[in-house]
Amino acid sequence: MKKLFIPILLLFFAIQLNAQKYQPTWESIDSRPVPQWFEDVKFGIFIHWGVYAVPAWAPADADIGIYAKYSEWYWWRKNEDSEAGKFFRDYHNQMYGEDFKYQDFAPMWKAQHFDPGHWADVFKKAGAKYVVLTSKHHEGFTLWPSEQSWNWNSVDIGPHRDLCGDLTTAVKDAGLHMGFYYSLYEWYNPLYHNNLEKYVDDHMIPQMKDLVNRYEPDIFWTDGEWDHPSEKWKSTEFLAWLYNESPVKETVCVNDRWGEETRGVHGGYFTTEYDLVHDREGVGEAERPWEECRGIGTSFGYNQVEDLDNYMTSDALVDLLIAKVAGGGNLLLDIGPTADGRIPVIQQQRLLDMGAWLDVNGEAIYKTRKWEGAGNNDAENVYFTKKGNDLYVLCTKFPEKPFTVNGIKNAGKVSMLGFDGKVDLKKSGNTVTITPPALTPVTNPSPYAWVFKIENSL
Amino acid sequence: MKKLFIPILLLFFAIQLNAQKYQPTWESIDSRPVPQWFEDVKFGIFIHWGVYAVPAWAPADADIGIYAKYSEWYWWRKNEDSEAGKFFRDYHNQMYGEDFKYQDFAPMWKAQHFDPGHWADVFKKAGAKYVVLTSKHHEGFTLWPSEQSWNWNSVDIGPHRDLCGDLTTAVKDAGLHMGFYYSLYEWYNPLYHNNLEKYVDDHMIPQMKDLVNRYEPDIFWTDGEWDHPSEKWKSTEFLAWLYNESPVKETVCVNDRWGEETRGVHGGYFTTEYDLVHDREGVGEAERPWEECRGIGTSFGYNQVEDLDNYMTSDALVDLLIAKVAGGGNLLLDIGPTADGRIPVIQQQRLLDMGAWLDVNGEAIYKTRKWEGAGNNDAENVYFTKKGNDLYVLCTKFPEKPFTVNGIKNAGKVSMLGFDGKVDLKKSGNTVTITPPALTPVTNPSPYAWVFKIENSL
Amino acid sequence: MKKLFIPILLLFFAIQLNAQKYQPTWESIDSRPVPQWFEDVKFGIFIHWGVYAVPAWAPADADIGIYAKYSEWYWWRKNEDSEAGKFFRDYHNQMYGEDFKYQDFAPMWKAQHFDPGHWADVFKKAGAKYVVLTSKHHEGFTLWPSEQSWNWNSVDIGPHRDLCGDLTTAVKDAGLHMGFYYSLYEWYNPLYHNNLEKYVDDHMIPQMKDLVNRYEPDIFWTDGEWDHPSEKWKSTEFLAWLYNESPVKETVCVNDRWGEETRGVHGGYFTTEYDLVHDREGVGEAERPWEECRGIGTSFGYNQVEDLDNYMTSDALVDLLIAKVAGGGNLLLDIGPTADGRIPVIQQQRLLDMGAWLDVNGEAIYKTRKWEGAGNNDAENVYFTKKGNDLYVLCTKFPEKPFTVNGIKNAGKVSMLGFDGKVDLKKSGNTVTITPPALTPVTNPSPYAWVFKIENSL
Amino acid sequence: MKKLFIPILLLFFAIQLNAQKYQPTWESIDSRPVPQWFEDVKFGIFIHWGVYAVPAWAPADADIGIYAKYSEWYWWRKNEDSEAGKFFRDYHNQMYGEDFKYQDFAPMWKAQHFDPGHWADVFKKAGAKYVVLTSKHHEGFTLWPSEQSWNWNSVDIGPHRDLCGDLTTAVKDAGLHMGFYYSLYEWYNPLYHNNLEKYVDDHMIPQMKDLVNRYEPDIFWTDGEWDHPSEKWKSTEFLAWLYNESPVKETVCVNDRWGEETRGVHGGYFTTEYDLVHDREGVGEAERPWEECRGIGTSFGYNQVEDLDNYMTSDALVDLLIAKVAGGGNLLLDIGPTADGRIPVIQQQRLLDMGAWLDVNGEAIYKTRKWEGAGNNDAENVYFTKKGNDLYVLCTKFPEKPFTVNGIKNAGKVSMLGFDGKVDLKKSGNTVTITPPALTPVTNPSPYAWVFKIENSL
Repeated sequence: MKKLFIPILLLFFAIQLNAQKYQPTWESIDSRPVPQWFEDVKFGIFIHWGVYAVPAWAPADADIGIYAKYSEWYWWRKNEDSEAGKFFRDYHNQMYGEDFKYQDFAPMWKAQHFDPGHWADVFKKAGAKYVVLTSKHHEGFTLWPSEQSWNWNSVDIGPHRDLCGDLTTAVKDAGLHMGFYYSLYEWYNPLYHNNLEKYVDDHMIPQMKDLVNRYEPDIFWTDGEWDHPSEKWKSTEFLAWLYNESPVKETVCVNDRWGEETRGVHGGYFTTEYDLVHDREGVGEAERPWEECRGIGTSFGYNQVEDLDNYMTSDALVDLLIAKVAGGGNLLLDIGPTADGRIPVIQQQRLLDMGAWLDVNGEAIYKTRKWEGAGNNDAENVYFTKKGNDLYVLCTKFPEKPFTVNGIKNAGKVSMLGFDGKVDLKKSGNTVTITPPALTPVTNPSPYAWVFKIENSL
Repeated sequence: MKKLFIPILLLFFAIQLNAQKYQPTWESIDSRPVPQWFEDVKFGIFIHWGVYAVPAWAPADADIGIYAKYSEWYWWRKNEDSEAGKFFRDYHNQMYGEDFKYQDFAPMWKAQHFDPGHWADVFKKAGAKYVVLTSKHHEGFTLWPSEQSWNWNSVDIGPHRDLCGDLTTAVKDAGLHMGFYYSLYEWYNPLYHNNLEKYVDDHMIPQMKDLVNRYEPDIFWTDGEWDHPSEKWKSTEFLAWLYNESPVKETVCVNDRWGEETRGVHGGYFTTEYDLVHDREGVGEAERPWEECRGIGTSFGYNQVEDLDNYMTSDALVDLLIAKVAGGGNLLLDIGPTADGRIPVIQQQRLLDMGAWLDVNGEAIYKTRKWEGAGNNDAENVYFTKKGNDLYVLCTKFPEKPFTVNGIKNAGKVSMLGFDGKVDLKKSGNTVTITPPALTPVTNPSPYAWVFKIENSL
Repeated sequence: MKKLFIPILLLFFAIQLNAQKYQPTWESIDSRPVPQWFEDVKFGIFIHWGVYAVPAWAPADADIGIYAKYSEWYWWRKNEDSEAGKFFRDYHNQMYGEDFKYQDFAPMWKAQHFDPGHWADVFKKAGAKYVVLTSKHHEGFTLWPSEQSWNWNSVDIGPHRDLCGDLTTAVKDAGLHMGFYYSLYEWYNPLYHNNLEKYVDDHMIPQMKDLVNRYEPDIFWTDGEWDHPSEKWKSTEFLAWLYNESPVKETVCVNDRWGEETRGVHGGYFTTEYDLVHDREGVGEAERPWEECRGIGTSFGYNQVEDLDNYMTSDALVDLLIAKVAGGGNLLLDIGPTADGRIPVIQQQRLLDMGAWLDVNGEAIYKTRKWEGAGNNDAENVYFTKKGNDLYVLCTKFPEKPFTVNGIKNAGKVSMLGFDGKVDLKKSGNTVTITPPALTPVTNPSPYAWVFKIENSL
Repeated sequence: MKKLFIPILLLFFAIQLNAQKYQPTWESIDSRPVPQWFEDVKFGIFIHWGVYAVPAWAPADADIGIYAKYSEWYWWRKNEDSEAGKFFRDYHNQMYGEDFKYQDFAPMWKAQHFDPGHWADVFKKAGAKYVVLTSKHHEGFTLWPSEQSWNWNSVDIGPHRDLCGDLTTAVKDAGLHMGFYYSLYEWYNPLYHNNLEKYVDDHMIPQMKDLVNRYEPDIFWTDGEWDHPSEKWKSTEFLAWLYNESPVKETVCVNDRWGEETRGVHGGYFTTEYDLVHDREGVGEAERPWEECRGIGTSFGYNQVEDLDNYMTSDALVDLLIAKVAGGGNLLLDIGPTADGRIPVIQQQRLLDMGAWLDVNGEAIYKTRKWEGAGNNDAENVYFTKKGNDLYVLCTKFPEKPFTVNGIKNAGKVSMLGFDGKVDLKKSGNTVTITPPALTPVTNPSPYAWVFKIENSL
C-alpha cells in the first residue's frame, strides 16, 4: 500500500497542477499556445447583429473615415459632438424625430425571418470554418437571456429568442466552430460609469462566464477594452478561469483585446481591423497567430443605404483572403444581418462566390502556414502558402507570362489547382520558372485567383 | 476650561445619540411616532402609472374578484395559470398577438400630454393634501432615472422624462406633501429570483435611498413585501437610515409593508386595501394611524374598458372618505393616468366633486381625530369626528327627522357647516337631539353628506 | 268594359300621382310637413366619429373661436393659413412629423372596443329618442362600405367594420330612431373640385341613396352645403326621391342644409349650431320644427385634451335642453367617441345625469310643444312647455319665493313632478302664483331643475 | 387666289386625315407599325412597385407554380381559396393578425430612401435602354396623383410623392425611354365590378389619358385585360386617341394586352411572360416585334424571403437576353424595389453584371435583328443576330472546338468582340468554320458569353 500511495499522491498533485496550470498573470496566460485548430481554419464569419439592425444606418458615402461608417455605432454617433455625429443626428431626427430614443428601437427588432440553419448553411457553403457572433456589443444589449441584462436582451424584448443559443446549435451542427464577440465596456450603462469594479464583478465577468458555460464557444472575442488597463477588467483572472476550469479550457481561443495595453501584446491571437493595430511597434508578426476582421461593405452592422459601390467585389474578397492567409493570418469577414433576421442576399452572393473559389483552391488556404521564403519574392499579385514540403503560389492576377519563384529547394511536381493539364516548370538554382498554361474559358478552373502547387519543393 | 469640557462632551454624545436615535430593530423603529402631519391631512391621492398604462386593461366586469381586476397586474396575470389569467391572455393575444411581450409596450408609453402642474392643480382642487406616486411597481420599471434599472426606466425608454422628479416639483409647489410607492419585489427580475441578498443590497436599497436623497419625499410607501420576512429585505436597517440620517428623517412617514409579517404590526402607519389587512387578528385599531387605499374604479392602474358602472359615484366617494376619517384613518384614493399622460376626465370629475364637498365641510375632516364616543352611537349613516372639544356629526344621508347623539358633555353651539340658518339641539343628560333644518335646494350647502358641528361639547 | 276603363285609368293616375306627390321644387318639398314623431322626441344624440378620432385634437383652450376647436376639422385646419391653422400644424408636426399626412391616420382607427349595443344602451338611459351618426364628414371617409368611396371607408381600412350598419341595428333594437349626418361636400376629393356635376351625380347622390336604401334611416341630416346653391347639389331632386320613392318616404325627417341659400329657409326642420343660423333674417321661428346641435365639450369629434373645464356640466346641459324644448326645438347633443370605439366615460356621465333628470321630469319634455303664452312671462330661469291643456313650468333654478305665471285660463291642479307633496297655487285673473314646496335633500325629486305641472290650465 | 385655294384645301384635308389617321378598329390600329426605336433597344427594365412592397412576400420555395410566387399578387392570393392562398393567409395572419387588412399597409410604404436619379443611373449602367414602371397594378393604387384614385395613390397616402413623375424625369434625363405599365382591371374596385362601362369611361380611360398627357411616356404597357374583350375596355378608341391625338402619337409603343382576345394578335408589340402566351396558336412569330418579361428572382414585386437560390445568376441573365434578342425579341427584366425605396443590392449586382457584358458585346444586341438563317443552324448554345450585312454569332458557352455556321454568303472579316487577336474562319460553300481563339483569363473579353462578328457575310 505504501508503495502505491506516493504515485497516487503525485497523480493527484499533477491533476491539481493541471487544473491550475495558468496563473492570472500575462506571463502565464501568454504562455498558452493558441490551439492549433485556429491556425488551420483561416476563414471565419463575423456577425454584427444588435438593436442597431433596426435603424441600420450610417453615412456610407460621407467623407468621414471608415470608423464613422459603422452602423453599430449609431447610438454613440448620434450623441457625439462631431462631424460624423451631425450626420447621424440629422438622419435620426428626420426619420424618427428627436423624441425617439435608441432604446425605443428594441421592440422593433423582430427577427421574424431568422433561420439559423440557413445561416449556418450559407457559412458552410462560403468555405468558412468558424463563426463569431456579437453576443453583446457596446450598446450592452445581449443576444442571450443574460440575467445581468434584464429587459435589455433579445429574449425579454424584441426578437424574444435566444439568438446566441439558436445560432450556436446550428453552427455546431454544421460542423463549424462557434465563437462570441463580447464588448467589455458598455457605452451608457450607469453601473459601468459609476462603479467600474462592481460592473466588472457583478455584471461583466458573470456574463462572460455565463456565455462560456451555456454555449461552450470555441472563441471568446473581446472588444471595447480601451477605456481601462486589463487589470481593471480583471482579464487575466477571467482567462485563468477560462484556461483552467471552464468547459472549453482545451479548445477555446481568445483574442488580444483585454485592456488598453494588450492589443498585439497579450492574450491569444492578435487582431487587426482594416489592417490597423496589428503592426504597432514592438509586435513581431510571427509572435502569435493573428486575424484580420472587416466588413464586406463599409460597416459591420447592416447599413440599409450601402450600395453596390460600398460592397467589396468577390474578386477583392478572394484577394483579401489570400493576402491575409499568405501573411500568416486568418480572415474574419463580417456580415450584417437585417432586423428581420436575414443575411442580405448580396452578402450571401459574396460569401458563396468565395466558397466556390475555395472549393477549387481551398487546399492552398486551409491548414497552410506562412512561407518564410516569401520575402525573397516581390512579384506583384503573387502570394505564397505552404503545407508540409509543398508550396502554393497564389496569383491574384493571371500571369500572362512565365514568372519565377525564388527559394525553392527541389523542383517537385507542379500543377494548377483545379486544372487537369500540365504546367511547365524550370529550375535554375533555387529559382524556378513557371509557365502558365493556356487556359480557355472552359478549362479555367476558377475566377479571381489561380494557384500553382509545387510539391516537395521546400 | 474643565467646567466647560463636560457639558460639551455631553452635548457631543447627545448629538451622536440623536443621530443614531433609532436602532435597526422593530422595537426601536416602531417607537418612532408617525409624524403628526400625516394624521392631520386625511385625504391623499394615490397614482398608479407604469408600463401597464399602455395595455391599460383588465376584465372589469368579469366575476373574478377585485384583485384580478387590477390592470397594473397585467404582466403577471397574463402569465398566470388561472381563470383570471385566461382573460388576460385571450385579450392580449387577440389585440397584440402572442409574439408581443409586455416589455414591447415600454416605448409605447409616450406621456406626451403629461402636465404635472395641471395634475397638482387637480389634486389641490380635490382637497387632497398628499400624493403617493408609484415610483416602481412590481414590473420593476422605475419612473425616475435609476441607475439600478438601466433601460427599464422612464427616462431611458418610453416617456423619456423623470416622472418622479417632475411630479414632485409640481406637487410641492402646490403646497401638498409628496410621497412614493415602491415595490420591494420585482416579478421577473432575475436578480431578485437568483440572489435575493444581492438584489436587496445592490438594487433595492440603493434605489430606495436614491429616491429619498433625490426627491426628499414625505411618504415612503412600500409594497410587494409578502415574499419574505422583513429581515431578508433588511427593512429595519433601511428605516433606521431613513429615521436617523436621511434628509427627511424628521418628517417622513412610512407604511407597514416591510416584510411578510409586518402589515398591521410594524412600521409607520398601517394600511388597508379595500378594507382588508387592517383588521387582522391582534392588530388593535388604535395602535397606529392608518390609511385605506383603493381605486375610483375597479383598478388602480388605468383600465380603458372601465365604464361608468365600474366607477364609484362622487356620493359614494364622499361617504367613503367620511367613514375612513371617522374611523381614525386616512383615505388614499387612487387615480390611473393614461399612457399619454392625462388624468381621465371622469376621474377629475370625481376628485373635483369631492373637493367641492370638502370646500364646505373640510373642517370636519382635516386635523380631526376619531371620537372614542362614537361607539355609543349606532345610527346608520351617521359618523363622528372631533377636533379639540368640538364634535362633528357627519350624516351621509340627510336626516329626515330629529336624531340623537350620545356621550355629549356640554350642549355647545350647534350648526350645520355651510348653512347659515339655525339648528335646533336639545340636551338631556349626555344625549342631545338634533333637529335637522329645513333646507331647500337653494340653501342646501352641499350634496352627498351634511355635517353638524357641536362646539365645546366634549 | 268601357265603364270600367275610366275608373281604372283614374286609379292608375292616382297611384302615379301619389308616387310623385312631391316635385323637385322647393315649393313642393317644403310643403311636406316634418313628420310628427320628430317634434315629439326632443332629445337626440349626435355622434361625430371619423378618421379625426385618431389625432383627436384641437386647441381646446386657445382663444380662437368655437369653430376652430372642432377636432373633426383637423385636416382642414392643418392646411389652413390662419391663426388656428398654426396651432394644428405645430401640434401635428411635433407629434407626427411633417411627412405624416392625414390619410396615414386611417389604419390607426381600430375601433377595437366598439360595442354598438352598449352605445345604444347609454343613449337610451340618457333619455334620448334618436341618434344621428356622421356617415361621412367633410373628410369624405364613409362609415359604411360605400362603393363610391373605395379604400376610404371604414370597412376597407381601419376599423374594417360597417359602423353605420352595426350602430343602426343596435339603435333600432333599443327602440330609438336612427339617422345619418352626411356631408355634401368633401374638402379634398378631386372629383368634387374638378367636376361638381359628376361628383353630385356619380358620387354624392348614389351615396345618399345607398345610405337610405341600406339602412332606412329616420333622419337624413346634411351638412357641408355652403359652397353651392341647392340647385347644383340637386337637392330637390334627391328630396323628391326621398319623399316619393324611398323606403322611408313616410317617416324620414331631413334638415335644412341643402344649399347655400337653404338654412332656415327650405327643407325639413331647421337647424342651429351653438345658437347660430336659426335666427337669420326672414326666418320665422314658428315656421318649422327646429333643432339645436352642439357638443358636450368644445368639439364635436373627440378631443383628447379637453379637460373638465371644457365640458359642460350636467346642470348646464339640463338647462340647455329645457331652454331649447321650451323654445319649440329639439336638442341634438353631440358625443365624440374615441378611436378605439368607446364613449368617453365623462360623456357617459353627462348623458346618464340627463337621463336621471328625464326619468323624473321627462313628462315636461317629450311630446310637448312650445307655449305661445311664454312671451307674457319674463321670469329668469323659468321656462314653459305645454301638452294638451296642461302647462309645465320648468325652473332651472329652484324658486326661493312664490312666483307668478301669466296667461293661465284655468287654475287646474298643480304639482311638482317627482314630488308627492302638495304645491300651493293661487289664481288672480289670468295670473297664478305658485308657492314652491319645502323640499329637503330627501324629498327633492331631482337636481338641476324643477318642474311644476298645471293641469287643464290652457 | 383660286389657284392657291385648292392646294390649301388639300393640305387642310391632309392634316385632318393625318390627325385621324387611325380608326378605332383593330384593323386600323394594327396597321400602325411599332416605332422602330423599340426594336433597336432590346433591353428594358420593368419595375413592380406598389403597396405590395410592404408585405413583400410570397412563398418563394413552395411547389405551387411560378405565378403563385408573384408577391404583387399578395392581396389576391390572401383571399384566394387555393393551396397558394393558404400559404399567403397563414403568413399574413401570423405576421399581422387577421384584423390587419391589405389597405392598412398603405401608410407603411414610406419610400424614404427613394432616389430616382440613382435608379436611372443603375439602369443606364445595366445597358438598359428603356424602363417600364407599374403606374397602377391590379390593386388599383396609383403611383401618381390620379384624381380617379383619391386616397389610394402614392401622393395622398404612404410615400406622399409622385413616383411616376419623379422617375420619369430621372429616366428621361438619363437618356432612356420611359414607359408605364397600367392594369386595366382592378381586383377589388367596386366600380369595376358593379358598372364596367362607367369604370372604363370615368376611371380607366381618364387615368390612361392622364398618364399620357402628364408624363408623355414612350411605352404604354397594359395588363389585367383578360376579364373582358377589348370592346368592353374600349381599347381601340383609346389607341386611336393615342395614335392620332396624344402628345406621344409618333413615338409611343404599346403592347398586346388590350382584351381577352388580343394577346399575340392585336395591338403593338407582342408580349410573353416566362415564355408563355407568345406562341399561342395562330400567332406567327415574325408578325410583330415582341418582348419577354420576367423577374430576376421568382417574383416581380420585391419578395423579402427570396434567397440566392431564387435569383437568376448573371450568367443565366445574359444567356436569356441573348436568346430573346436572337429570337427577334426584347427582354424586359423586372426589378422589385423595397418599400423604403431602394433597389435590392443583389438586383443591382445582376444589372451591372449585364451592363459590363453589354459594354463589350452590346454591338451584337442593340439595333440588331433576328437572322432568318438561324433556322439552318442547330448548334446548342449558339445564337445569331444580324445588323446590315454583318452577322453576330453569340456563344453562351465558350466553344472548345471549331464549329460551323451555315447560310453565309460571303466570308467577311471575322473577329471576337472585345478581343484584339485574330480569329480563324474557313468557308466552304455557304458554310463557314470558326476556330475559337486561345483566350487566357487575361485576354478573355468577358464572362458568360462570347460573340463572333462576321462582317459583310449576309
